[in-house]
Amino acid sequence: MDRPVLAEIFSQGDEVVTGQITDTNAAWLAQRLQHLGFDILRHSTVGDRLERLVGLLREIACRADCCVCTGGLGPTVDDLTAEAVALAFERPLGLDRDALAQIGRYFDRRGYPMPATNTKQAMVPNASQRLDNLCGTAPGFTLQQGRCFFAFLPGVPAEMKAMFTQQVEPRLAARFRLRPTRLIILRTIGLGESTLQQRLEGLELPASVRLGFRAAVPENEVKFLFPPDFPVAEASALVDQASRLLGDAVVSIDGVGLPGGNLAAVIGRMLLSRSATLAAAETASAGQLAWQCRGQRWLAQSLVAGDAGRVWSLLGGDPGILPDDPVQAGPLLAERLRENSGARYALVNLGTIPHDSALAADPGPSTVTLALAGPHGTVSRQVIVAGSPDRRCSQVAALSLDDLRHALAAAPEATGKT
Amino acid sequence: MDRPVLAEIFSQGDEVVTGQITDTNAAWLAQRLQHLGFDILRHSTVGDRLERLVGLLREIACRADCCVCTGGLGPTVDDLTAEAVALAFERPLGLDRDALAQIGRYFDRRGYPMPATNTKQAMVPNASQRLDNLCGTAPGFTLQQGRCFFAFLPGVPAEMKAMFTQQVEPRLAARFRLRPTRLIILRTIGLGESTLQQRLEGLELPASVRLGFRAAVPENEVKFLFPPDFPVAEASALVDQASRLLGDAVVSIDGVGLPGGNLAAVIGRMLLSRSATLAAAETASAGQLAWQCRGQRWLAQSLVAGDAGRVWSLLGGDPGILPDDPVQAGPLLAERLRENSGARYALVNLGTIPHDSALAADPGPSTVTLALAGPHGTVSRQVIVAGSPDRRCSQVAALSLDDLRHALAAAPEATGKT
Repeated sequence: MDRPVLAEIFSQGDEVVTGQITDTNAAWLAQRLQHLGFDILRHSTVGDRLERLVGLLREIACRADCCVCTGGLGPTVDDLTAEAVALAFERPLGLDRDALAQIGRYFDRRGYPMPATNTKQAMVPNASQRLDNLCGTAPGFTLQQGRCFFAFLPGVPAEMKAMFTQQVEPRLAARFRLRPTRLIILRTIGLGESTLQQRLEGLELPASVRLGFRAAVPENEVKFLFPPDFPVAEASALVDQASRLLGDAVVSIDGVGLPGGNLAAVIGRMLLSRSATLAAAETASAGQLAWQCRGQRWLAQSLVAGDAGRVWSLLGGDPGILPDDPVQAGPLLAERLRENSGARYALVNLGTIPHDSALAADPGPSTVTLALAGPHGTVSRQVIVAGSPDRRCSQVAALSLDDLRHALAAAPEATGKT
Repeated sequence: MDRPVLAEIFSQGDEVVTGQITDTNAAWLAQRLQHLGFDILRHSTVGDRLERLVGLLREIACRADCCVCTGGLGPTVDDLTAEAVALAFERPLGLDRDALAQIGRYFDRRGYPMPATNTKQAMVPNASQRLDNLCGTAPGFTLQQGRCFFAFLPGVPAEMKAMFTQQVEPRLAARFRLRPTRLIILRTIGLGESTLQQRLEGLELPASVRLGFRAAVPENEVKFLFPPDFPVAEASALVDQASRLLGDAVVSIDGVGLPGGNLAAVIGRMLLSRSATLAAAETASAGQLAWQCRGQRWLAQSLVAGDAGRVWSLLGGDPGILPDDPVQAGPLLAERLRENSGARYALVNLGTIPHDSALAADPGPSTVTLALAGPHGTVSRQVIVAGSPDRRCSQVAALSLDDLRHALAAAPEATGKT
């Protein structure tokens, strides 16, 4: 088997290393590079200090086949990339007249004289190839040093992305013999990571296939990364087998050419095929149920309120007759909501999630009542959620929506509204 | 001057290195560490490969004084941190009985048997100190290796943050002679980053003070980082001046000893001092308004619905009389909602945010009508929001709540309910 082609991502800038901004460039580049077929060895970030930049550049030149660097190409004194490259690799900077003319035109088009400081951006290291920047003033450049092919790009995401896509990607495809890997993701609801792993223990995976788990609240993902040229039929058989072992916890599968997507997308397809709508009332999930269904026309409405009594009165229920016990109140509320809203399905969650605890003491898990009313009757159950308050709300919303998914999967596809 | 105390941040996980998720932990930790007084040398990320983890751990042990590592402490086979530490630093893993008991109790409280795979999480390297995890199953640990003090924390942000704040920060403060910098953050709503920067151009900042801007949707933050021993009075004067230049866009100021907090916290203090409550109806913000007020008892209710007509009928309005024009419908809905709910204030947002565009074509900005009904009358306005659909919803909710903030600030504190 061929040796994997190793790529690194190098972000520079004080604002990234001190956490003033979150580095979204690195994740974007990593996805693109992995998709192209690179094995991502490492991301590194350092601030605007010459000796730190030089050290990292020299390290990378020895261990990676390719490195994409972002940031530090601006006109100000703290933009040190070109200088660091010159020092690290003994390639003195020279004026690139075409780059200077381009920067000049950038200012001409805007009707400003070019500030003298921008001349600095036209200085590129010896024996490097310029990358034109059509959206800004900072040109980039590429060079080969040691085993590593470096591409230096500006840190502004829009400029970086345009230059990577138009100029770097074609060079990488031409320069390296890349073989893309294949990622298949099973999205699940309701099972913890360790339970997922236990269920999959019987699966016989070839050593070349990598199995991973990821908590993507409210979902838990099971990921299979297949090496290049792994037989498609064999991959499908493995994923089918995993899917059977996980049973109906599997919400959807991404990467197999079927419609995948999250819980709301899956429910949405089932509701739309039945021309059905959903109404909800949330006293525990604080709007998360509505939010998880954002943009979906089948969510007719959701009432977010502090307690069951207010939901009851919003639905025009007679005061004083709603039982205090949520286990009894849940189904009543769901039925009344269904009737009142005209939606075919109604979901209610009742419970209190402690938001104000400053995390000093663990408030203990929260018990929440979920109720679902539909054309085939009303069901309810209690669930226990833990973790941060936001995670609890997200879980409550997802478990409630998952009850609807199960009900829709069990019910025959209705031909008319029942 | 003392030598700076060097800190590194080490994130691990295939999902981070391949860009499946953006690493927000690193930025959060960097801010906290910088605030404590560390000089941040580098962030590094590697995937779930034993030899890569081992290599990076050994590098860091030689060059940093402190390193905070996140991720890889879960129960599954791809969680390799403890094993990598054992190998890198020749510290065999041993069972920590207290940790095992804690993990057992975590499952007991939820009424599940502990899966056997979770035993792995109780295995910690020799001569390390356990860090308890009160929100999840993965304990962390600290150890001294070479010149470096390492803290290993889970990758789940809520767990990581709680453990860092409660357990790691005090140990770092005790172990290192740190001279903390001082960070003051002005939280603003309604002005873009470049406008904020323009407004502050007249501010004369000493060279040692760093001014930064950060889009923290829906807020925009203006941050002042003062060096150790910067005179308190001088810092206060600068922040006062900045606050005056930004005017009523400033929602609150964190780091000056006053009650700060986000928009909901600020509004909450004003509503509670008036014993007032809020009702809302959201057709544009999809539950974000309710979500931004989560856990706040003063939010009586929020109705999330697809269009104004449904809100109107939920409020018992006569069919057919609500004007189609949102500019006319908004105030009517807000007034009816206020009356119907018994809340002192009612906020309504009307508009359609395009969620389904796969970003292939920019759908253009969205126009949304905001209306506020209160004891002093009804006001409405139209706002334009852009960016991703989620950002638009978040902005709509915040701008709507900000109208309430202005109304509360302008109105005299009521003595009785009006």
